Amino acid sequence: MNLKEIIFGRRLRSEEEESEQLGTLSGIPVLGLDALASAAYGPEAALTVLIALGTLSSGYIVPITVIIIALLIAVAMSYRQTIPAYPGGGGSFTVAKENLGPISGLFAASALCIDYILNVAVAISAGVAALVSAIPVLLPYTLTLCLIILALLTIVNLRGIRTAGLLFIFPTYLFVACLGIVVIIGVVKTLMAHGHPIPVCSPPKMPISVTTVSIWLLFRAFASGCTALTGVEAVSNAVPIFRQPTTILAKRTLTIIIMLLAMLLAGVAFLSHSYGISATSPGQAGYQSILSQIVSAVSGRGVFYYVSIASILMVLALSSNTSFTDFPRVCRLLALDEYLPAEFAHRGRRLVFTQGICLLTVLSGVLLIVYGGITDRLIPLFAVGAFTAFTLSQLGMVLHWHRSEEPNAKWSMATNAIGAVATAVTLVILAVSKFKEGAWISILVIPPLVMLLSRIRHYHQEIYSETIEVVPLDMEELVPPVIVVPMKQLNSITRKGLRLAMTLSPEVHVVQVVAEEMNTDDLMHQWSKLVAEPARQAGKPVPELNVIRSPYREFFGPLLRYVRKLAIHHPDRQLAVVIPELVEVQWYNFFLRHRATLLKTMLRLQGNPQIVIITTAWYRKEMHLKGKLDQVNQELKLTAEAANKNKEK
Amino acid sequence: MNLKEIIFGRRLRSEEEESEQLGTLSGIPVLGLDALASAAYGPEAALTVLIALGTLSSGYIVPITVIIIALLIAVAMSYRQTIPAYPGGGGSFTVAKENLGPISGLFAASALCIDYILNVAVAISAGVAALVSAIPVLLPYTLTLCLIILALLTIVNLRGIRTAGLLFIFPTYLFVACLGIVVIIGVVKTLMAHGHPIPVCSPPKMPISVTTVSIWLLFRAFASGCTALTGVEAVSNAVPIFRQPTTILAKRTLTIIIMLLAMLLAGVAFLSHSYGISATSPGQAGYQSILSQIVSAVSGRGVFYYVSIASILMVLALSSNTSFTDFPRVCRLLALDEYLPAEFAHRGRRLVFTQGICLLTVLSGVLLIVYGGITDRLIPLFAVGAFTAFTLSQLGMVLHWHRSEEPNAKWSMATNAIGAVATAVTLVILAVSKFKEGAWISILVIPPLVMLLSRIRHYHQEIYSETIEVVPLDMEELVPPVIVVPMKQLNSITRKGLRLAMTLSPEVHVVQVVAEEMNTDDLMHQWSKLVAEPARQAGKPVPELNVIRSPYREFFGPLLRYVRKLAIHHPDRQLAVVIPELVEVQWYNFFLRHRATLLKTMLRLQGNPQIVIITTAWYRKEMHLKGKLDQVNQELKLTAEAANKNKEK
Repeated sequence: MNLKEIIFGRRLRSEEEESEQLGTLSGIPVLGLDALASAAYGPEAALTVLIALGTLSSGYIVPITVIIIALLIAVAMSYRQTIPAYPGGGGSFTVAKENLGPISGLFAASALCIDYILNVAVAISAGVAALVSAIPVLLPYTLTLCLIILALLTIVNLRGIRTAGLLFIFPTYLFVACLGIVVIIGVVKTLMAHGHPIPVCSPPKMPISVTTVSIWLLFRAFASGCTALTGVEAVSNAVPIFRQPTTILAKRTLTIIIMLLAMLLAGVAFLSHSYGISATSPGQAGYQSILSQIVSAVSGRGVFYYVSIASILMVLALSSNTSFTDFPRVCRLLALDEYLPAEFAHRGRRLVFTQGICLLTVLSGVLLIVYGGITDRLIPLFAVGAFTAFTLSQLGMVLHWHRSEEPNAKWSMATNAIGAVATAVTLVILAVSKFKEGAWISILVIPPLVMLLSRIRHYHQEIYSETIEVVPLDMEELVPPVIVVPMKQLNSITRKGLRLAMTLSPEVHVVQVVAEEMNTDDLMHQWSKLVAEPARQAGKPVPELNVIRSPYREFFGPLLRYVRKLAIHHPDRQLAVVIPELVEVQWYNFFLRHRATLLKTMLRLQGNPQIVIITTAWYRKEMHLKGKLDQVNQELKLTAEAANKNKEK
Repeated sequence: MNLKEIIFGRRLRSEEEESEQLGTLSGIPVLGLDALASAAYGPEAALTVLIALGTLSSGYIVPITVIIIALLIAVAMSYRQTIPAYPGGGGSFTVAKENLGPISGLFAASALCIDYILNVAVAISAGVAALVSAIPVLLPYTLTLCLIILALLTIVNLRGIRTAGLLFIFPTYLFVACLGIVVIIGVVKTLMAHGHPIPVCSPPKMPISVTTVSIWLLFRAFASGCTALTGVEAVSNAVPIFRQPTTILAKRTLTIIIMLLAMLLAGVAFLSHSYGISATSPGQAGYQSILSQIVSAVSGRGVFYYVSIASILMVLALSSNTSFTDFPRVCRLLALDEYLPAEFAHRGRRLVFTQGICLLTVLSGVLLIVYGGITDRLIPLFAVGAFTAFTLSQLGMVLHWHRSEEPNAKWSMATNAIGAVATAVTLVILAVSKFKEGAWISILVIPPLVMLLSRIRHYHQEIYSETIEVVPLDMEELVPPVIVVPMKQLNSITRKGLRLAMTLSPEVHVVQVVAEEMNTDDLMHQWSKLVAEPARQAGKPVPELNVIRSPYREFFGPLLRYVRKLAIHHPDRQLAVVIPELVEVQWYNFFLRHRATLLKTMLRLQGNPQIVIITTAWYRKEMHLKGKLDQVNQELKLTAEAANKNKEK
């Protein structure tokens, strides 16, 4: 127990929820890591598509980034409106479900869940990839490192939101500070040099353009850059983790995250342009990330460079933490609506949704293992889920305001409508431009997931409607069951079962199946002396012994037939089969005794609702305990006798 | 059920044992295949060691074979004496155990069991190797072919001894006939050509000797040739499978098998010598087995050649069948002495020892899979086990005759003593000459197996001595248990459990653990109306409701604590926990409901002998059945009413 507390922290009482809630300062690392880390890979993704343009590419990054930032602000504005409208946590699932119907809600939830799972795998492997490219000796341990980070993130998140918040404050703000300083110095230098600053370290030379610009290429670059928007949904989904005044803190947190992200994106694009920085081909010699080029161009390769790069790596690897906060909350909402088992809505020992966290760990762990820790091929699937959820959520909000009677409803509707159109257009661009690269897989995965979730709900509701009964408990026919005790020998183990049976019902049938005559003593000989006679003398009903000879040497067949016959004979009685078990927690026990388990399974597979299974356990230490007791009694007796003798003297 | 009968045959009654017993004709294939197949690989193994001698090698095969045949006859003579001495099946285990003590018996049994398992793997893969070298397209399917043959052998043996006997008559006698004809023709040709017959097809030319003869080399050749003796033990081990007069038929069968084997061995050695045939390196280009060389030298490569080769392949592949007959019998003897679970002594549906056959299949299957169907490296281990068993068995027989008062005991003792010395010497030669090649593994494997078997017996006997009780059943304190019913909601499933509990004991505690207030209805509100009041009105004891609030949101902890508290409160009562289960045989059920299983496990792990577990099953179809019943009742009522109305009219 103590080890558990060291790893996961002491248990928290339900009333301690408040102490786990966050303010803005710790809310930003917990919910903003994913979004902020986008600054590290969003522009890079867009520029990588533009590599073919060579030196020209840095000219196009500014307009593309402007569009992405506009989209970001539109989406953020709409989510800012979602927060007060759904203070219980208005993720795409809730908003789409309430305004567009349950199926839309499920589509949003499925898309988002897949996105979160992919995010964990991709973010961790991206961080590890950067790490092993810096320290190549670690290359053979890529998968191991991925799984270690996954395990650490899981433990941190199982320790509760507050721990995660406190732990991630440092890397998050270090990252923002470093990149912010670079952007500020870079912008100042650019302005002082009239738009043509001289890099401290020159970026790698780019070849001249090999293709001309096409709309298609720009679309693809835009679609790739849009990965910068994933994670924006997080705050509105997790509103209840903020302390009072909840919605105000949530809105403030979202605004700060988006402002920071927009400034970083803008800064990166501006500096790429002014320093003429382009992407290098990943996986080829001379590869250097955009941020590495920018930092070294602006500030050279000193201590500051290495601190910045380290903070970027950390944020990349940890950015999946946002999924750990949000995924379990989506699962909780699904569970509350019975789309998942109720356990997903139960808060664990540290008031987080343990089941959801574990499910996320398992699923993303499987992805990491299947792809050997290198998840590049999963990236195209990544943004499709997020933008599907965005679009459904915005559409839902449009309908929400349409029905609303609030004074500003029209303005709000307009904001959400713009967001909906923008994200829908982006989704189409994303789906089309990345279809071949893997976006088609989403189409294969999302609908079956939606079907599975509906199926689970259907199942839960069927069970509910089949089992609900609000009438008073039926007190008719409260007759004890007919009891069957299968018995091979009359030893301590079976005696315990027989004695229990005799306390439960006056009708006890003991069944001995004699399969191989040579091995089994017929109980018939001893029955009268050992059981029937004592029972009669004690005035108890005598258990009935039935010896069944099994001509084909089977044990289960004759026994099950006997039970079935009894069931037909007593159609309105319960039949309780008492199975006396020898329980011993030792490994070889597993190999030596399966009869009881087999019998239980076979009885259940009979499908007869009359059958009740009773297992009595005989523990090996029982004998020793009994022995000890006898010994103590013996000693007491001797002492008493000795005392008496002394007295006599 | 029908499919099972088609594959395994109809069940046999215990009285039908006699119809399954064998005579000499079918006994030879069942028990002699292993020994007779030795003629195909024994001389080959010896000659392979002599390859280094080049053309000289065929000169040494005759003296080596003479010694091997002498050894064979010595061993066979001793086993002939074992048969009437132990008509219940006198394998090495029985003989060693009865005369040398249980540990020697276990050593013999372990050695023999390992030998049998190896034999199955090696014989099957040898047969398949010969087949794929004849039809090279099959090469990639080596392992698959091995496993198919293993499966077929398993099925044939599960169908009973008689089936195996009838099925193997044809290949066995074909093999003996073909090889016999070759030997006779060859001998006649040799005599007619005054010792220098002209081969129809010349054997491959041998290089000149590269080494000189050494005693060491001859010892190694002899040790390799001794693999021809494995399988000789089979008959004496399986005496009871013969029909009346059992021992006479068994002795006759053994004699015929040994005579046939001796003649074939002698013939092969003689023809190798007269035709100047030597072994070729296995696995190298131009490899040709000794028998293939002999047959083509004597009779050319006509139809007869291919029939002979086919019969050799069949016998090689099927020779493992002897293990399938004998291994389960050794297991049965071990089980009768409690060294293995009793199931190994139970005859299955076709009166063979199903468990032993299945164990052999699994173990040899694992060997085949681990070695990919190529088991050459296992061959050195092979004969060590057999000769260990032989030696212990012979030694045991020496002591047996020493104590015996039969008239011929001295002669018998002398025979067995010669056998013992011969096999012991051979064992030493084998162990030394094959130590490096893998015989050392036997030393690692046999002692732990002996320890495991003793440990199992010790365990069985401990349990027996702890549980044996022959006094009359204690009728004191036959008080019904205190019953605990964990309940989340009062629905059909839990109602069934509660009603059962009320029939079993007047003291019923219903425990509701409220973990997350938001999700669970407190049963307190409804209890009085739905349960307490109706019970009171019906004059039944009222079940006690306990609502436990779980501040840490755990379910199991508070429930287990409640049960523990009750147990301390009622130290002399049983506590029955009624677990109402929803049973549905559907795959996703497995993922959605584990609570009941977890609770059962946790209750058992409490290790408290007072705890009894009662599971009531609620089947989903129950509702439908109830619905149907209600419908039928409704219809009956309507019909009755209609009838009444008609009457009134």
